[in-house]
Amino acid sequence: MSDEKKLAIIATKGSLDWAYPPLILASTASALGYETEIFFTFYGLAMLKKKLNLQVSPLGNPAMPMPMPVPVIMQAMPGMQSMMSSMMKKTMKKKGVASVEELRDLCVEAEVRMVACQMTVDLFEFDTKDFIDEVEYGGAATFFEFAGKSDICLYI
Amino acid sequence: MSDEKKLAIIATKGSLDWAYPPLILASTASALGYETEIFFTFYGLAMLKKKLNLQVSPLGNPAMPMPMPVPVIMQAMPGMQSMMSSMMKKTMKKKGVASVEELRDLCVEAEVRMVACQMTVDLFEFDTKDFIDEVEYGGAATFFEFAGKSDICLYI
Amino acid sequence: MSDEKKLAIIATKGSLDWAYPPLILASTASALGYETEIFFTFYGLAMLKKKLNLQVSPLGNPAMPMPMPVPVIMQAMPGMQSMMSSMMKKTMKKKGVASVEELRDLCVEAEVRMVACQMTVDLFEFDTKDFIDEVEYGGAATFFEFAGKSDICLYI
Repeated sequence: MSDEKKLAIIATKGSLDWAYPPLILASTASALGYETEIFFTFYGLAMLKKKLNLQVSPLGNPAMPMPMPVPVIMQAMPGMQSMMSSMMKKTMKKKGVASVEELRDLCVEAEVRMVACQMTVDLFEFDTKDFIDEVEYGGAATFFEFAGKSDICLYI
Repeated sequence: MSDEKKLAIIATKGSLDWAYPPLILASTASALGYETEIFFTFYGLAMLKKKLNLQVSPLGNPAMPMPMPVPVIMQAMPGMQSMMSSMMKKTMKKKGVASVEELRDLCVEAEVRMVACQMTVDLFEFDTKDFIDEVEYGGAATFFEFAGKSDICLYI
Repeated sequence: MSDEKKLAIIATKGSLDWAYPPLILASTASALGYETEIFFTFYGLAMLKKKLNLQVSPLGNPAMPMPMPVPVIMQAMPGMQSMMSSMMKKTMKKKGVASVEELRDLCVEAEVRMVACQMTVDLFEFDTKDFIDEVEYGGAATFFEFAGKSDICLYI
């Protein structure tokens, strides 16, 4: 067991697009035999809710491929964010890409350790009853226990 | 000393929210006995100013918890960014979270090495007289000297 | 060769500003003798196009230095993004900073391995004929082959 590779991830974003990288990397690493831990902090805590409602926004991200050209100001109009999020989910499904929920389930099944940052939970007044049951709680010091002996450590 | 763990951080963001992760991680690591260095580049240089005026914006970040629902277009209105920044600072204080200044002081006291990217200083025409005295200057090659032997290296 | 240091980068952003860090770090590391690989995924794929048209946006990034104060709502107006991108390119050139194309050429010449994420290529329906010839294709598992033995691994 001590020869097992280790992957530590800090997941700080909670949008629909940026929820994917930590979950894809964690589930892939687990499948490759890595011991994996994700530390969820700041906006990344939104990924731990039982009922996910992640959204995506093109604002401030000129590199986001759009199905058609939309002026920036229009991207800020009411309803645009929900529409974009709904479209992204449909495209993902059509292309056979797993949903965030499915990837998270994969991680749980693969025994990826999931730690929520207690400080941010308190700061943003998240209700931990809304989080999935597999979550543990800790702080930055908890994170370093595992990260300090990891082979790969990513801040996402 | 050669057995000391090493943490290298590249701090590239300069908003009020994203100023926290590098400083929290660096000060925690130092307290745990890590030798720590932060390389400040791009927008991260704003964190080095003696007089900090960091702001936060919900634009493009649908995962930011809002005290009340605010339409995206309203978030772009004059005064909103200052109001949000002021509210975040008050919430932090009320919850007993240290300010960016306090965390930076902690890092300085813990002898976290702080290196500013000379190329970005020149590019953005920062006046280095505005920076705190503890800053050293260097380039990407300087960064790799330390990062290459680090145990954890994070791009934030 | 086995003593060579290794740098693995995941490049996920495709804006004009965030295209710089992976290319600067990869080309510098190569010059220092590192074996280097960049895995391009999500919006980072835009950096692989033969004809680059990267844009920068101040929206959601209050730390971006502006040549003059511009209200947030004005930053969303038609033409602002193109103007900002054009100004940034001019400033870079005036300051003697290499363009994204030049840095990418440097990386190619230095034999930085460039891998495009096949899943995101399919998802965003990128046409691989638009990409530079040096690109290889793979998935997260391909990435871990190199990352697992890297000395520095960065998610950008």
